[in-house]
Amino acid sequence: MNTPIRVGIVGVSGYSGMELARIVAAHPALTLAWVVSDKWAGRALGDCLPVADPAAALTVRPQAESGEAFGSVDLVFLCTPAEVSLALAPKALDAGTRIVDLSGAFRLKAADYPRWYGFDHARPDLLAQAVYSIPEATGPDGAGSLRAARLVANPGCYPTASALAVFPLLRAGVIEPTGIIVDAKSGTTGAGRKATEEMSFSETDGDFRAYRVLRHQHTPEIERALALAGAPVGPVTFTAHLLPTRRGILATAYGRLRAGKTAADAAAAVQGFARGQAFVRAAKPDAVRLHAVVSTNRVLLGADADPERGIAIGFGAIDNLVKGAAGQAVQNANLMFGLDQTTGLLGLAGSTP
Amino acid sequence: MNTPIRVGIVGVSGYSGMELARIVAAHPALTLAWVVSDKWAGRALGDCLPVADPAAALTVRPQAESGEAFGSVDLVFLCTPAEVSLALAPKALDAGTRIVDLSGAFRLKAADYPRWYGFDHARPDLLAQAVYSIPEATGPDGAGSLRAARLVANPGCYPTASALAVFPLLRAGVIEPTGIIVDAKSGTTGAGRKATEEMSFSETDGDFRAYRVLRHQHTPEIERALALAGAPVGPVTFTAHLLPTRRGILATAYGRLRAGKTAADAAAAVQGFARGQAFVRAAKPDAVRLHAVVSTNRVLLGADADPERGIAIGFGAIDNLVKGAAGQAVQNANLMFGLDQTTGLLGLAGSTP
Amino acid sequence: MNTPIRVGIVGVSGYSGMELARIVAAHPALTLAWVVSDKWAGRALGDCLPVADPAAALTVRPQAESGEAFGSVDLVFLCTPAEVSLALAPKALDAGTRIVDLSGAFRLKAADYPRWYGFDHARPDLLAQAVYSIPEATGPDGAGSLRAARLVANPGCYPTASALAVFPLLRAGVIEPTGIIVDAKSGTTGAGRKATEEMSFSETDGDFRAYRVLRHQHTPEIERALALAGAPVGPVTFTAHLLPTRRGILATAYGRLRAGKTAADAAAAVQGFARGQAFVRAAKPDAVRLHAVVSTNRVLLGADADPERGIAIGFGAIDNLVKGAAGQAVQNANLMFGLDQTTGLLGLAGSTP
Amino acid sequence: MNTPIRVGIVGVSGYSGMELARIVAAHPALTLAWVVSDKWAGRALGDCLPVADPAAALTVRPQAESGEAFGSVDLVFLCTPAEVSLALAPKALDAGTRIVDLSGAFRLKAADYPRWYGFDHARPDLLAQAVYSIPEATGPDGAGSLRAARLVANPGCYPTASALAVFPLLRAGVIEPTGIIVDAKSGTTGAGRKATEEMSFSETDGDFRAYRVLRHQHTPEIERALALAGAPVGPVTFTAHLLPTRRGILATAYGRLRAGKTAADAAAAVQGFARGQAFVRAAKPDAVRLHAVVSTNRVLLGADADPERGIAIGFGAIDNLVKGAAGQAVQNANLMFGLDQTTGLLGLAGSTP
Repeated sequence: MNTPIRVGIVGVSGYSGMELARIVAAHPALTLAWVVSDKWAGRALGDCLPVADPAAALTVRPQAESGEAFGSVDLVFLCTPAEVSLALAPKALDAGTRIVDLSGAFRLKAADYPRWYGFDHARPDLLAQAVYSIPEATGPDGAGSLRAARLVANPGCYPTASALAVFPLLRAGVIEPTGIIVDAKSGTTGAGRKATEEMSFSETDGDFRAYRVLRHQHTPEIERALALAGAPVGPVTFTAHLLPTRRGILATAYGRLRAGKTAADAAAAVQGFARGQAFVRAAKPDAVRLHAVVSTNRVLLGADADPERGIAIGFGAIDNLVKGAAGQAVQNANLMFGLDQTTGLLGLAGSTP
Repeated sequence: MNTPIRVGIVGVSGYSGMELARIVAAHPALTLAWVVSDKWAGRALGDCLPVADPAAALTVRPQAESGEAFGSVDLVFLCTPAEVSLALAPKALDAGTRIVDLSGAFRLKAADYPRWYGFDHARPDLLAQAVYSIPEATGPDGAGSLRAARLVANPGCYPTASALAVFPLLRAGVIEPTGIIVDAKSGTTGAGRKATEEMSFSETDGDFRAYRVLRHQHTPEIERALALAGAPVGPVTFTAHLLPTRRGILATAYGRLRAGKTAADAAAAVQGFARGQAFVRAAKPDAVRLHAVVSTNRVLLGADADPERGIAIGFGAIDNLVKGAAGQAVQNANLMFGLDQTTGLLGLAGSTP
Repeated sequence: MNTPIRVGIVGVSGYSGMELARIVAAHPALTLAWVVSDKWAGRALGDCLPVADPAAALTVRPQAESGEAFGSVDLVFLCTPAEVSLALAPKALDAGTRIVDLSGAFRLKAADYPRWYGFDHARPDLLAQAVYSIPEATGPDGAGSLRAARLVANPGCYPTASALAVFPLLRAGVIEPTGIIVDAKSGTTGAGRKATEEMSFSETDGDFRAYRVLRHQHTPEIERALALAGAPVGPVTFTAHLLPTRRGILATAYGRLRAGKTAADAAAAVQGFARGQAFVRAAKPDAVRLHAVVSTNRVLLGADADPERGIAIGFGAIDNLVKGAAGQAVQNANLMFGLDQTTGLLGLAGSTP
Repeated sequence: MNTPIRVGIVGVSGYSGMELARIVAAHPALTLAWVVSDKWAGRALGDCLPVADPAAALTVRPQAESGEAFGSVDLVFLCTPAEVSLALAPKALDAGTRIVDLSGAFRLKAADYPRWYGFDHARPDLLAQAVYSIPEATGPDGAGSLRAARLVANPGCYPTASALAVFPLLRAGVIEPTGIIVDAKSGTTGAGRKATEEMSFSETDGDFRAYRVLRHQHTPEIERALALAGAPVGPVTFTAHLLPTRRGILATAYGRLRAGKTAADAAAAVQGFARGQAFVRAAKPDAVRLHAVVSTNRVLLGADADPERGIAIGFGAIDNLVKGAAGQAVQNANLMFGLDQTTGLLGLAGSTP
């Protein structure tokens, strides 16, 4: 039997951190050594969150102690805002600890930070070192470099759904690489765990709207993910919308159909891509729905095309907190440590309604 | 044609204030002279809220200006926390302005404030002067005193639904006045317009729970409402629950069936009570539902009984923001100024789904 | 005082019919003479639906009696499936009664019916006679012909939202007329009042998905609406999605930005279009939301553009049952009878949450 | 390693059957041998439902084949209407197969069926043989008889939540055994998987109401469960309400406080009961919420009391499809076959929002 891989989680009281603790607590090869959250500091994790033993017995530590704790684990998950991840990552690396960062701190090129994140990136050296990984897209090479990676930039929720909705169509030459539009819709947990009036139930239930139109920071990340996957594209138009539900993202992606391509080609592109992928399933477009992916690490994809309109449409559905955050983080951690990428993730079999 | 009655609203940016502005703006006999809210100060009301012209053109005033504005209106609606209402009411009365207060500031006896509201009431003289009015229950006498009232304590949402669910059964002698239990469920707007994590969509959607168990401040108000209606009762057990919907209250009330009384007596009590009441309808228990009352000033009542179990059950449904707040406030204002109590309220015909 | 215009409604028990009854019952110039529904036949309308008196006292008639009733009214609203409207319209016209048809029976050219509706249109003569009217877009000419129209094809919900999201950008020359994509999302009432497992709460709550991808019958209607509005376009790509909410449509429309055009041009196009329109408001893109239009006849529009991506985005929000069905039907009826188009519709002031 | 226990599921396409398939597919000691559903007959289970391999590869059989299949398994779960369970149970028993029946067919005494289920029970001999088991309440004896049981009557969802909310208070002598009232609220999946207009999203979202008032068939089952648990009670008043959410039941139970008992006694009763129970947790009343139990086999209990009002209130929350159906069925199956009762159930760690 192998030595368990010891992990820590910083930011366990946010939605991604909570979901991560739940998955890690039930993971056969990862052992949760400590968890950090100022909000829950001093309480037993099991009193804050429904996690399995023995993780439930851990006492949550304050963030001030995270630095000294880094040395005691093999891997730390940073479920923290980008600015905090930027401050903590060097400390963890100095302590010899590998990192999966769930923030946007290490996902883009340095030049993109001022426009999309509003700050100059202080550590371009770490950016150069960070491995961005959607295993199904950035693929074998990404996975190869994951084995050696010290710092993994875990993808954002929208970019995961969006890149995976588009990538099969690009890879199969069904659509042009320019003029791609992604119209995406997310549940409310994508906005994080916040106390704001606009995210209150009274304001959100029964509502639907777009937000951060043409300014969403996930726009360049979609472009980068596709480039890293070997399918470079022109500037992508991305629109985020807020759904009156808690979990799940549906990305509806539009691409210009290449001459001679058909609806059958679009469907075949998705089916071919899904084949052999543990977490990807192909479905008819109207079966690509949130219910089929919520609480799982699955990606459900579909596609159709209309030559008369010169358009192909790709659909991608994921759970924003699992495949879009914590699940993919564990999938990446599995690959970093030479485990099967599905370890601890197939049991998340989702739920009937 | 009569001179319009000029009214002001303090606290227009809360849910009750918004609903009140909407109703007053379309009211044939009330004219909205000014509205006050620090949050919206300086903006046109129509930019904050979908209200009809000319109210839409009003510029919202800061709260600091409410004092000087009192003299310019015949009636002010206070949609403010109890503490603020306590501070503003004397100023309005000094300015000769009549008041409908939507807070709990003037609903109870002085002796009840320390336990249920957590403060000593500084103005028992105003409490003595205040008229508490659920027109259907506190009835002709209440309405009579409303004509002369300077200060009306508008009932709370739960007490309105609860007292009306129970009152017909008491009035008709179907249940005993002791051992009454009200199990009530409310939509989220009942909690006001707040930025808290626990009221966020992510935390509330899909959830249901009780709150303030055995400590809710509406408990003594239910008892008082029934006493004022001529149906004094023993201590009432009241439990509030939070529904994952925005609007509406359903009160399920349990009373001890008096000897010889039957299910038919319970149903007849409600039908008899509803007869001739403009806003009250009797229905079968499973038709007493939120959809039938939301966005209206209606009260839907039903009742059943089981002699084997010695129990009668009364059901009452209202919209917490209309009959439970703004609509009843206008109903009371109508009675204060000698108008038909339904003026401006029947047009709120509710909505299909 | 004018003679009231007598109207009948066939199909009053569906969601559009219910909403129409509610609006007509409170309309100052229309009088509801009769209502038809097999489902509710023999019951008082007020027992089925919260409508104002005297409409509440009407006894609902079975559909078999609708033919003989046509002659007794000036106008009939057909809230029936396309096949039923096709059968009833000739009878109503023969009886000298004018028609507003809320189905798709008279909205397209005959040649479009086999592909999009699955039947050959039996009455191309009626199609030629029918006036299709979104008053804000098909505009003065449409309104002119409405004055004389015998048969008005009331637009579909998606086409209303979609055409209005796109039209200002086309009219102002901000976007090209080709390559337009509309990604639209609707509440569940858009699917009608149905007993199906897939539309059950358990299956729909928490879910989101597209449906009828590339085959939705509203696709050619959007193209036709824009052509009739004087802005002919190439084939439009249209995708419908089902939101987990009851009411409202948001259409997010993408068009190719014309050379030299900017975000300011896009915003100005919408503001210019909204000016002077009773039901249209311009807003920032993230304020174009369902809450602002639900239960009203309003259209909320917004737009933005990104020259780097060569794209403009138009947003349009409406209530699918009001501006997308019953409200627009009354707006068209107002214009048919020489009334102000807003008569009976401004009181639908919507609701706070 | 032990021989796996082979099981079959009849009625796999209903909500309880789906949940059961999901749990059994991941259970370490149960092997899913076959599944039956006319609706899904001929399809691969994995195409109908997100279940783990190898269950996903099973071909769903038509119900006509269930009889012949009984002999091939050690245990069959009947997720069928009571009438169907009554017909199938004898066949399974004849084939030597043990049964966990999730319907109401074997839960009551024969005399109770005409009034509460509307039929005369044809097999009182099977009723006499059936073991009714809520392991936490009917306890060691129940578990003992489970080891030998051929036919287990799995409790209903409401009775599980209701009996467990009340039982600790009875056991500890905090409340009287007469005059107990249970006001319960359930998500929509409790109504089963149905195509009815009243259960459609458009009719249910935003609504709340009681149903089957004083006639719900779970009423006598609550009384019987408590009697079997050693806490016989007088007739219980039970009211069911429909929540606008998919999963979860909250039972709010009222009992008459015995003289001298306090709020502390009520809380202690629940804490004492929860101690050492694998699936039961004690919490403060306002923390007994659906979010804490949905998708798990947990029971969350709380209690409070008010001597002034002579009342104690017990709260119980469960997932209606897990602890209220499929999870408890597996818990009972575990006990029937000598496994730890938690086997295959602790991994259902629930979910963050």
